[in-house]
Amino acid sequence: MERKETENELVARISRKLAATAKSKALPVGLGDDAALWSPTAGYKTVLTCDWFLEGSHFLRGKHPADAVGWKCLARAVSDIAAMGGKPRCYLLSLALPAGLRAKWLSEFLNGLARASRALGCQLAGGDTTRNATVLITITVVGEVHLKHAILRSGAKPGDAIFVSGTLGQAELGLRQLRRRHGMARPSNAALRKHLYPEPRLALGQWLAEKRIATAMMDLSDGLSTDLSRLCGASGVGASIDANSLPLTSLAAARGARRLALHGGDDYELLFTVSKRNTARLPRAFGRLALTQIGEITREKNIVLETNGRVETLRPGAWDPFR
Amino acid sequence: MERKETENELVARISRKLAATAKSKALPVGLGDDAALWSPTAGYKTVLTCDWFLEGSHFLRGKHPADAVGWKCLARAVSDIAAMGGKPRCYLLSLALPAGLRAKWLSEFLNGLARASRALGCQLAGGDTTRNATVLITITVVGEVHLKHAILRSGAKPGDAIFVSGTLGQAELGLRQLRRRHGMARPSNAALRKHLYPEPRLALGQWLAEKRIATAMMDLSDGLSTDLSRLCGASGVGASIDANSLPLTSLAAARGARRLALHGGDDYELLFTVSKRNTARLPRAFGRLALTQIGEITREKNIVLETNGRVETLRPGAWDPFR
Repeated sequence: MERKETENELVARISRKLAATAKSKALPVGLGDDAALWSPTAGYKTVLTCDWFLEGSHFLRGKHPADAVGWKCLARAVSDIAAMGGKPRCYLLSLALPAGLRAKWLSEFLNGLARASRALGCQLAGGDTTRNATVLITITVVGEVHLKHAILRSGAKPGDAIFVSGTLGQAELGLRQLRRRHGMARPSNAALRKHLYPEPRLALGQWLAEKRIATAMMDLSDGLSTDLSRLCGASGVGASIDANSLPLTSLAAARGARRLALHGGDDYELLFTVSKRNTARLPRAFGRLALTQIGEITREKNIVLETNGRVETLRPGAWDPFR
Repeated sequence: MERKETENELVARISRKLAATAKSKALPVGLGDDAALWSPTAGYKTVLTCDWFLEGSHFLRGKHPADAVGWKCLARAVSDIAAMGGKPRCYLLSLALPAGLRAKWLSEFLNGLARASRALGCQLAGGDTTRNATVLITITVVGEVHLKHAILRSGAKPGDAIFVSGTLGQAELGLRQLRRRHGMARPSNAALRKHLYPEPRLALGQWLAEKRIATAMMDLSDGLSTDLSRLCGASGVGASIDANSLPLTSLAAARGARRLALHGGDDYELLFTVSKRNTARLPRAFGRLALTQIGEITREKNIVLETNGRVETLRPGAWDPFR
């Protein structure tokens, strides 16, 4: 039986792995004090968000590699900063671990987290550790956004065009493939890769904010039908979606791909609205990331799906942990 | 069977109860967007901390009133802000609830949280909700501290006097009483009150920071023996504690009270060090809160307890979830 770590030892281990560069002007204290000190760049506001990542609900310890758990718990929280047009800067890690969890799991988890931390420019600033029968993770991300650039969910106006980045439904397809397989998942195709290692659309979000092109924005975490109804609710508007315009995954048959695009969660693409006169300023792709118009904001407060002239109400159909 | 709430409905319910005054200049977005926007007062740094509060580890649903769970989860996180000499300003609530949890529990929990929020001057800025078989809570508190006033754990120097606020061990005594009783605990004496409804020492922490009296400070969450060893470790010093000077609870016999004072957790009193020439500036009480010198910082890096001339090593003896 391996010797159990004390809380001090665990914190020291996390610090060694993640906090090599933790002291900076923005973060003068580093780890190990009661709290972290943080200052945004002059002229910027602080953006704060937190996200659960629980064994059993958000990942399965027997199927999701620990490295992917480490990457994804930070990436999905950072996606909320991208959705405001902000830059992630640092994060707090709340981690609860089972007593008997093998050192290898923790080491691989910290590897994935460290890779995400470097790739997303977001360093560990503090946190809290405790014991629990299953792995519990909450990440709080601290970012910053220029005072006048933050894009909220509430700015969409009737007539605005509705856009999404990338392909929709691919992460949900990856999850389905993972569920059917035995043993630990490997990122063997684009769908599994997207499910295991999502990439928050930081550069696009910041560009849309700086250029003041988007009137409203959010990230797609619970699926288009659910998240669009939230954006419309916050803006007091409705929407009409053209089913034929949805950027579908090519890895599933057309009918299944459409359902995945409408209701599949975990894509972490950006959903945003653009006033008519600004749509011309928007390229068809941002780098290699497609930008697709999928519909229009309407004055009527319901959300409808139009398929070759047939119109039906689009109801939130994605996964809701409370249903 | 009661109808299950969707996540949107739960968030709306929390918002109604806690976020009546959520929009302000410091917090211009309020709840319901991807992330919260925050700006500290000019000339101040942001202080960030997070704390787990888990059913089974930190509270028992059959013994701790839901109202006390709501109060304490915020109060203990705010205590880390007090320990830096900061002012709490807002918080993020990460809440996971069992599917069948009665509406009454949630309502009482939110009542306690709302009371703490008002009493501590700390408003809800955002959060995340999900389902889990047991209640899981993480609170991230955002505070602010004047650029030059933050007090860290690392500033203690040999010769500094060691002080604590209030009485030590009282919360642990309350926990023991609660464990022996059947059914739901009531705050029927000072020990149970302190265990259920701890009060972070915000005014004292801010005063010590503003007057620049303390050289190092932290809050006592895991017990004096454990927390003092952390403060000494961060400062690269040791300490000598005079057993006869400890501010003991009068609700336990002397011998038991001393052990409670040395190792009992959850007091949320402040532990701080003061240079010799500044001890005269420190009153014997701050309002009605006693301030007691319990020993001295030493150059030797061990921590010793002196009892009527007998000297022994004081080892961390408090509750550690990792042991």
